[in-house]
Formats: sequence, structure tokens, C-alpha cells
Amino acid sequence: MTCHPVTLAIHGGAGAIARDGPAREAARHADLAAALRAGHAVLAGAGAAVDAVVAAVTALEDSPLFNAGRGAVFTQAGTHELDAAVMDGATGRAGAVAGVTNLKNPVSAALLVMRNSPCVMLCGRGAERFAAEHGAEIADPAYFFTDERYAQFERARKRRRIELDHDGAARGPGNDAEDGTVYGTVGAVALDRAGNLAAATSTGGLTNKRVGRIGDSPIIGAGTYADNASVAVSATGVGEVFIRAVVAHDIAALVRYRSVSAQQAAEEVILRKIPAAGGRGGAIVLDRSGNLAMVFNTEGMCRGAIRADGNPEVAI
Amino acid sequence: MTCHPVTLAIHGGAGAIARDGPAREAARHADLAAALRAGHAVLAGAGAAVDAVVAAVTALEDSPLFNAGRGAVFTQAGTHELDAAVMDGATGRAGAVAGVTNLKNPVSAALLVMRNSPCVMLCGRGAERFAAEHGAEIADPAYFFTDERYAQFERARKRRRIELDHDGAARGPGNDAEDGTVYGTVGAVALDRAGNLAAATSTGGLTNKRVGRIGDSPIIGAGTYADNASVAVSATGVGEVFIRAVVAHDIAALVRYRSVSAQQAAEEVILRKIPAAGGRGGAIVLDRSGNLAMVFNTEGMCRGAIRADGNPEVAI
Repeated sequence: MTCHPVTLAIHGGAGAIARDGPAREAARHADLAAALRAGHAVLAGAGAAVDAVVAAVTALEDSPLFNAGRGAVFTQAGTHELDAAVMDGATGRAGAVAGVTNLKNPVSAALLVMRNSPCVMLCGRGAERFAAEHGAEIADPAYFFTDERYAQFERARKRRRIELDHDGAARGPGNDAEDGTVYGTVGAVALDRAGNLAAATSTGGLTNKRVGRIGDSPIIGAGTYADNASVAVSATGVGEVFIRAVVAHDIAALVRYRSVSAQQAAEEVILRKIPAAGGRGGAIVLDRSGNLAMVFNTEGMCRGAIRADGNPEVAI
Repeated sequence: MTCHPVTLAIHGGAGAIARDGPAREAARHADLAAALRAGHAVLAGAGAAVDAVVAAVTALEDSPLFNAGRGAVFTQAGTHELDAAVMDGATGRAGAVAGVTNLKNPVSAALLVMRNSPCVMLCGRGAERFAAEHGAEIADPAYFFTDERYAQFERARKRRRIELDHDGAARGPGNDAEDGTVYGTVGAVALDRAGNLAAATSTGGLTNKRVGRIGDSPIIGAGTYADNASVAVSATGVGEVFIRAVVAHDIAALVRYRSVSAQQAAEEVILRKIPAAGGRGGAIVLDRSGNLAMVFNTEGMCRGAIRADGNPEVAI
């Protein structure tokens, strides 16, 4: 049996680098490393790439420091609406949930949709009901309340009003980047020993977003995509531009149809097309040989990778 | 000014050919022709492709004979959940609504999202509230009740039970094709005088579908995609396979990156990849030279096209 070079990479969002002090920075590094170890444990045990990405993203969802699961941002209504997706590059199967409010780990719910339903994408109450029926852990709304996200929400509401007063123009959803914080969507891509690829992404979306808004993360082809014939991709950034540009599938299509490398494809889309369309963000891209690209057009992107040796490497 | 060969094409779903008598067949032909004329009127008046596809799809939504708007199928809960999307190939802008229950014309709501919101995709109540705020016409649930769809729903529920008793295996959402009816999702692609492409798709989804299920129609890249640099695509079929295969963007990527024709790209995806992935359906594809492909791997696909001469051509 050929052993493929097991690889797991994660991101914790792209944007302006958070300048919130060394203690939080150290905590963020520690949580990224822990997520890498969680995913690596699956791969080292000859587990599937799809289970490794879900393990890594679950760990990031459980951290209050990223905009997914526990640390999700607030909607305009002061609520939380979470989106997540997972895709298995070996089978082409995928699962996604959008606009869920009470699931502790949206990425696990996405995996349940993939494994236990004929559907790919479920939203809102229907998604919550399906996940609950299949044993997903339910969380109280209070679980998603963090002081920092609430302060961000308050600032976004205030700034929005001020800006409206000032220039009279309609503004997009709250822009955390101006706030010195990061977007914080989380995601993972993995290659397992059997040579299978997988990708997963999870997010709380944009601070102060409109209720019902779905970003790119749970959309197969936009924020999440995996195909053994090309690459696994998890993206993060201004979701609307990423949806229109079908970012994850476009990177995969360049690899497949133009025979360029994962790095070249990621650069073409993230460094050329997305800025030209007025978008900001990044993506992590992995191929079956273990070639990994981590590309962003923002000031920074929380990211990390772990290989067969099991040593997590983290950067921002 | 170069005048591009204005073209509008529509579909009313792919599947088994409905054998419901000559009267309904004639009515279906008439409604397809009327939708073509509605879109053509926009193009003939030097209107934009995006307005032409919305006009054509609106006409099909207003017909009780297609599974979109008025004639939408029933969910498991005996309700209606409608999905629609529109994309402008000139600007790359797009709008979509998913899981809406009370909007008379979901495709118009998708256009409102595109034009009046920083979002691309809105779902459920949030989408309904946004559309209502922006003047969308609200419909009573009774508006979507048709005897034929209700009978289909009853048959699907019954058959589902029987099949479960028989083979014990979990089944996908109701399969209308076995019922001698068509899927009935509707869509349009257009090329306007200025050389701009656009696509729109609208659907009620699958009969007896799970509440909260989102199919490929409202997903940019899956059921709907348009880019002046390649093609405009509207797809119809088993949504889950179409989402996983990112059908509309894959067709566009083949045109753009492999320089094949719209016809070759549509055949590669609809006749080779989709059946290999266990999927059924079709797509209509249009390029900036007016080359049109209407490809399906099912027994039939309701479809039609109209060119500069204004004579609608319809086939099933």
C-alpha cells in the first residue's frame, strides 16, 4: 500500500491582524495548535481525511477565539446564525447547514447531513431538527455569548449609524477589519494515508449581518470544496464576493483543467480575481501529493499545518 | 455599436415526460411560449439580459404547470419552500433566496437581493422580511395549493412508506419521475444586445422534501451561473448531485479553461459526469455569440428558445 504524506492544514480567518495583546495571541496560537493535533490524531490513526477536518474544525468551534461555534459573531438581531460545510473528496459527498442557532458544533451537523440524509444542504429550523434527531449536541443561546463579540457587535451598530449619518450611503454588513480584529471563519483541509482529500469550513458570518444571510462557507464550491481529482479547499473572506466567484471550485478547476499547481491556482484566484472583484480574504488548498498553499490578500490569516511528524506549525 | 444576436432560452425541468393528456401538454407549450415572449420583449426593447431572464422565469412561476412559484410541490410538512437565484454575467453580481414560503415570485425577490442588499443569499424568514421591505408581492399559502401537486404529494408519501416496508432502506426525497411527471424546476439564460449574459432559476424543490432542504437552484455555481467571460447556465435535476458537482460553474470552467464550446461543455458535465455520479437532469447553456446548448440525460426536458425574429420554439 502506498502511504500518502498525511497532511492537515487549518485557517482561523483572514483580515487585519488582531492587536489584542500577547495573552490572547498566545491563546490563539495554542488553540490553532490544539486543533491541528486533534485532526492529526485522526490521520495518524489511519482515519479518513473527512473525519480529520471535522475534528480540527470542531476544536476551533469550541474555542471562543474564532468566529465559529462558541465564538460566533452577533447578527443584526443580536442572535447567532451559524453556517458550516464538509466535503469528502473521495466520494464527492458533502453536507452543509446554514442559519442554525442552537447547534454546538455546526460542522458535526454538516457531517450528519452528509452521512445520514439524502440532502446536501439544510437550513434553519429544518437543519436544527434533523441534527437533533441524529444526536447533535444542542447549545443554549447563552453558550454563544462572549463579551468580546458583544462589544464588537455594539461597535458595529454604533459605527454603522455614524457612517449613515455622515455619508448617507447604505453600508455593507459590519466590517470587523477596521476594528483591528480578524474575520475568524475557520476551516481545514486534509490528506489521509489512503490518499483521500477533504475540506470543512465553519463560521458565524459577519458581525451585525442581516438575519437569514448565508455566506460562502456552507456553499459547496464557494467556501468549501474537495475532489480527489484536483484539490481540497477551505476559504475565508468577504462571503458575497467568494460566492459570486465560486472561489473553491474555481481553484479546483484551474488545477484540473489548466494543470497548474495548488499554489498557482490559489494565487490566481485569491491574489488576482478576488481583489479585482473588490473582495478580500484567503484560502487553504491541498493536493493529493501533500502540496499545500495558504494564500491571502489581507494583512494576515490565522493558519497552521501539521505533517506526518506531528509537529504543529502556526502563523498569523 | 455591435449588435449581439439577442437570444433567450428557458427550461421547465428535466425528467420523465409527463403523459397527462393533450390538453395539459398544449397548455404547457403555451406557457413556455408566453414566457419566451415575456423575456424577448425585454431584449427587443434593448433591455438587459438579467431583466429578460427574470421576466421569463416570473412568467413560468406564475404558471401552475411548473414546479416553481404557483405550481410548487409540497414539502414533507405539506408546506411550500421556494428557492430562486439570478446572476448578471456583466457585473458578476448575483442574488438568491432559499426556503421562502410566502413570496409570489421568488426570482423577483432574488433580483431584489442582488440589487438592494450587500448580500448574495438570504434564506427563510430573513429573506421574506427583506423582500417584503423592498416591495415584493406576498402570497397566501393557499396561492401555492394546486390539486395536482397535492395528489403528487399524497402519492409520494404513500409510495415512500411502501418502499420502506419493502426494502427497509432509507430513500431519497420523493421521486416524481417514477410518477410520469417532470421535475419542473424552471430557468432561463439570455444574451442581450449589449452582449451581456444572465441566468436565473426557480424551483419548489422535490415533492415531499425535508423542511429546510436547499437544492441546487439558488446556489450560485450549482444551479445558476453567468459570466460574460464564459457562459450563462441554468440547470435542473436531482439537486444534491448538482450541488456536489458544482454543475453550472463546472460547465463555465470547461468553456473558459479548456476552450471547448458551450455544447461540448454541457455534454461533458450532463452526459458524462452527472450520470457517473448517479445524477439525472439537464442544463441550458448560452455563450456571448448566441451559441445555445440544451442538454439532458433524462427522457425529456421542457425547453424553448427565442431569437431576434421573436418566434418562440418549444420542445419537450
